[in-house]
Amino acid sequence: MIENVIVGQSGGPTAVINSSLVGVFKTAKDRGAKKVYGMRYGIQGLLDEKVVDLSNYIKTDLDLELLKRTPSSYLGSCRYKLPDVGTDDALYEKIFAILEKLHISAFFYIGGNDSMDTIAKLSKYAKIKGSSILFMGVPKTIDNDLAITDHTPGFGSAAKFIGSVTKELIRDSLVYDQENVTIIEIMGRNAGWLTGAAALAKAEDCEGVDMIYLPEIPFEPEKFIQRIKDLQANGKKSVVVAVSEGIKTADGNYVFELGNHVEFVDAFGHKQLNGTAKFLSDMVSRELGCKTRGIEFSTLQRCSSHIVSRVDITEAFQVGGAAVKAAFEGETGKVITLKRVSDDPYICVTDVNDVDQIANIEKKVPLDWIINDGTYVSQAFINYIKPLVQAELTPIMVDGRPGHLILQD
Amino acid sequence: MIENVIVGQSGGPTAVINSSLVGVFKTAKDRGAKKVYGMRYGIQGLLDEKVVDLSNYIKTDLDLELLKRTPSSYLGSCRYKLPDVGTDDALYEKIFAILEKLHISAFFYIGGNDSMDTIAKLSKYAKIKGSSILFMGVPKTIDNDLAITDHTPGFGSAAKFIGSVTKELIRDSLVYDQENVTIIEIMGRNAGWLTGAAALAKAEDCEGVDMIYLPEIPFEPEKFIQRIKDLQANGKKSVVVAVSEGIKTADGNYVFELGNHVEFVDAFGHKQLNGTAKFLSDMVSRELGCKTRGIEFSTLQRCSSHIVSRVDITEAFQVGGAAVKAAFEGETGKVITLKRVSDDPYICVTDVNDVDQIANIEKKVPLDWIINDGTYVSQAFINYIKPLVQAELTPIMVDGRPGHLILQD
Repeated sequence: MIENVIVGQSGGPTAVINSSLVGVFKTAKDRGAKKVYGMRYGIQGLLDEKVVDLSNYIKTDLDLELLKRTPSSYLGSCRYKLPDVGTDDALYEKIFAILEKLHISAFFYIGGNDSMDTIAKLSKYAKIKGSSILFMGVPKTIDNDLAITDHTPGFGSAAKFIGSVTKELIRDSLVYDQENVTIIEIMGRNAGWLTGAAALAKAEDCEGVDMIYLPEIPFEPEKFIQRIKDLQANGKKSVVVAVSEGIKTADGNYVFELGNHVEFVDAFGHKQLNGTAKFLSDMVSRELGCKTRGIEFSTLQRCSSHIVSRVDITEAFQVGGAAVKAAFEGETGKVITLKRVSDDPYICVTDVNDVDQIANIEKKVPLDWIINDGTYVSQAFINYIKPLVQAELTPIMVDGRPGHLILQD
Repeated sequence: MIENVIVGQSGGPTAVINSSLVGVFKTAKDRGAKKVYGMRYGIQGLLDEKVVDLSNYIKTDLDLELLKRTPSSYLGSCRYKLPDVGTDDALYEKIFAILEKLHISAFFYIGGNDSMDTIAKLSKYAKIKGSSILFMGVPKTIDNDLAITDHTPGFGSAAKFIGSVTKELIRDSLVYDQENVTIIEIMGRNAGWLTGAAALAKAEDCEGVDMIYLPEIPFEPEKFIQRIKDLQANGKKSVVVAVSEGIKTADGNYVFELGNHVEFVDAFGHKQLNGTAKFLSDMVSRELGCKTRGIEFSTLQRCSSHIVSRVDITEAFQVGGAAVKAAFEGETGKVITLKRVSDDPYICVTDVNDVDQIANIEKKVPLDWIINDGTYVSQAFINYIKPLVQAELTPIMVDGRPGHLILQD
C-alpha cells in the first residue's frame, strides 16, 4: 500500500526533464499517493532535508503544462555519488531515516547512468536492511549514452535543436561568396550520439554538414585539414563541420588539450571540456588562411525548451508515469526503458529493466554506424534518430518569451 | 513608368531579411513590374552580372511563406564599399550599363548603414548622369544602429532570441546548488542594443540577468569582479552577465584584446571580435575560483528564424513593400524608416527619408538609458524594446526541422 512518494532530479538537465517530473507527479497523484515530495538538488539536498510538497507548487493544469515546457531541473540537481554499500552505513541510515520520517513508500530518481548507480545502491541497501521502500530509476540524458534503452528522453529534443540550428547556420554560412569554414562543437563527452544529430541538417532544402567527428573514432588533424582542402579544391566555398567536444587524437589526448585551455574536473572525475571548436577553427585559419568560425552550442543544446521534440517530451512524460505504475505494482531496483517496436511507423513502448543493467555503463555509437573514414554517420544512424525529433510542442509564450514554472521557496 | 526592378541584399544577414525581400518581390509584382531581378551577393555579384529572375525561383504562395521564414540572405550578400562618386567613373558606368541592359527602372538594396552608403552613391551618380533609375534603401540590421528609424527590421527577432534563450540559460544556471558565473557574449560592435535585449529575460517567472555591459560605457574589470563578489556575498549562487562583444576598457582596448586572441579586419575595416566571454569567464574563474561558463550566441542570434518576432517579420515585409511603393511614386535616394506612433498600444508606421541621413551613421544606446553605473538598462529601454519582440510566426516544420526556400542555380 503506497502512502507518500518522493522524486528527485540528478545530473545534467535536459529540455524535457520536467516532463518526466510531471509524469511522476501526475501519475502518483492519479493513482492515490497521499503526498508527492520533491527533493531539492537531488540526493544531496535530501541529506539536508531540503524537501518540498509538490502539491503546494504545482496547482493547476496550466502549471503542469508550463512545467513540462520548463528547461533545467525544476527541483534542482546534483552530481553526488553515494559511497559503495557497506562502506558508510551511517550515511545510508541517515537517508532511510529521512525517508521513513516522510512516510515514503516509493523513491523516483530522474537521471543518467550516474543517477542509476544511486538507485542501484539504495535498493540494494533497502534489501539488506529489510526496508519496504521502493526505488525506481527514470532515465534522462541528452547524451543518449544509457545501455538497454533504445534511447533516452532528452536526447530527441537536443537532437532537434542541433539539427534545426545547424540547418540555420549552414544557410548563414553561405551568405558571402567567399571561402569559409565553420566548426560547430557539440556536447557528448565519450558518445557521439548528439554530434551525429548534426546529420539532421541535411534535407531537400539543405546540403547538410560536410563532416561529423565523433569521439568514438581517433581524430587525425592532418586528415581533417586535408579533407577541407579537398572540398575547397572541388569548389565548395562554405565548409561546415560538426565535432564532439570529446574528440581525441590517437594517443588519447583531447583535441582541446592541444591548445592551452583550462580544465575542470567534476565530482565524478569527468573533465569539463571547452574549446575544441575554437582550437580547430584557429588551426584551419592558420593552415588554410580562410575565414573561420568556431561555434559552441554550449548549454543551449540542453535547455532550449522553446524547440522541443513532441515525441521526446511525450516519452519523457511516459517514462515518469511508467516508473510510478511499476513501483505501485511493487517493483524496486528497476529502471524504465524505451523499447522501439518499429522505425516506420515509429512505435515505441516502455519496459522495466534491472537498474544494474544501466548504472555506470556508457553506450556509444556502434562503429559500423560511423562511415566515410570516421567523418559521417550512416543511414542506419539517421533512420534511428529521425523519429525522435518529430513534431513540436508549442511553447507557451508570455509577453514574447517562453513561459516557465519555477519553484520559489 | 516602371519596367523591371532589381533587388539585392547586403551586409550581415538577419532572421527576417528575406521577409523584406518577399515584401519587395510581391509588391513590385502586384504593382505591375514586368520582371523582378535579384542580384546574387549584392552589388559585388551585380558587377559580375550574377543576376536571377526571381519569378523562376519563387513560384507559389508556399514559396513566399517559406522564404519569409528562411534565415540568411536568400540572394547572398557582400561587404563591398563603392568608391566615392567621381573617383572611379568606369566602375559606376559598368553598373549603370548592366542595369540599363536589364531595363531596370528601380533598384532596391536591403542592408545596414554601409549599404545605405551604396544607395546614396548610386542615386548621386544617377543624378549627375541624368539616369532615370530610382534607388531605394530598405533597412535591416540586427544591430539596430541605424539613425532616423525608430528601430530596424531584424533587431526584434534577434532580441527575441536573446531574451528567450537567456531566460532558458538562467534556468539552466540554477540547476546545481553551487556558486557559478555565466558570461553571455552578444553581438553589437559599437552599439549595445542587442546586449541590452538580455534585459528581456527578466519576467515574473525569471529573475533576469544580473548585469549588462554595453559598449557605450568603458568597462572596468576590477569593478566587474567586485560586483560579482558582492552578489555572491549576498547569497546569490548563480550570477549571469550579458556583455557586448565590443566592450572596451577606458584606454580604448577591446576587452578580448586583453587576452591573446586573433583579430580579423573586414572590408569596411571592422575588427572581427571574438572571445570576450571566454576572456571574462577565465578571469572570474581565476579571481573568484568559482565555476564559470562563457557562452557566445555567435551567429545563432542573427539566423534563428525558428523563433522570430511576428512584429519584426511583419515590419520587415512592410519596409520592403513601402520601398517599392515609394519608388513607383518616383522617389529615389531614399530609405524607408519606421516611425513609432505609440508604445502601448504599439503602433508603428513606415516613413520615407533621405538616405544620407542614415548612411554611415551609427546610432548608439542613449547614455541615459544605461543605469546602475553602466551595468543595466533603464525602464525606458525596456519599454522601447518590448513591443518589438511580441508574438510569433510559426516555422513551417518539415520532417521535424524548419523548412526553408533556397536558391539553387
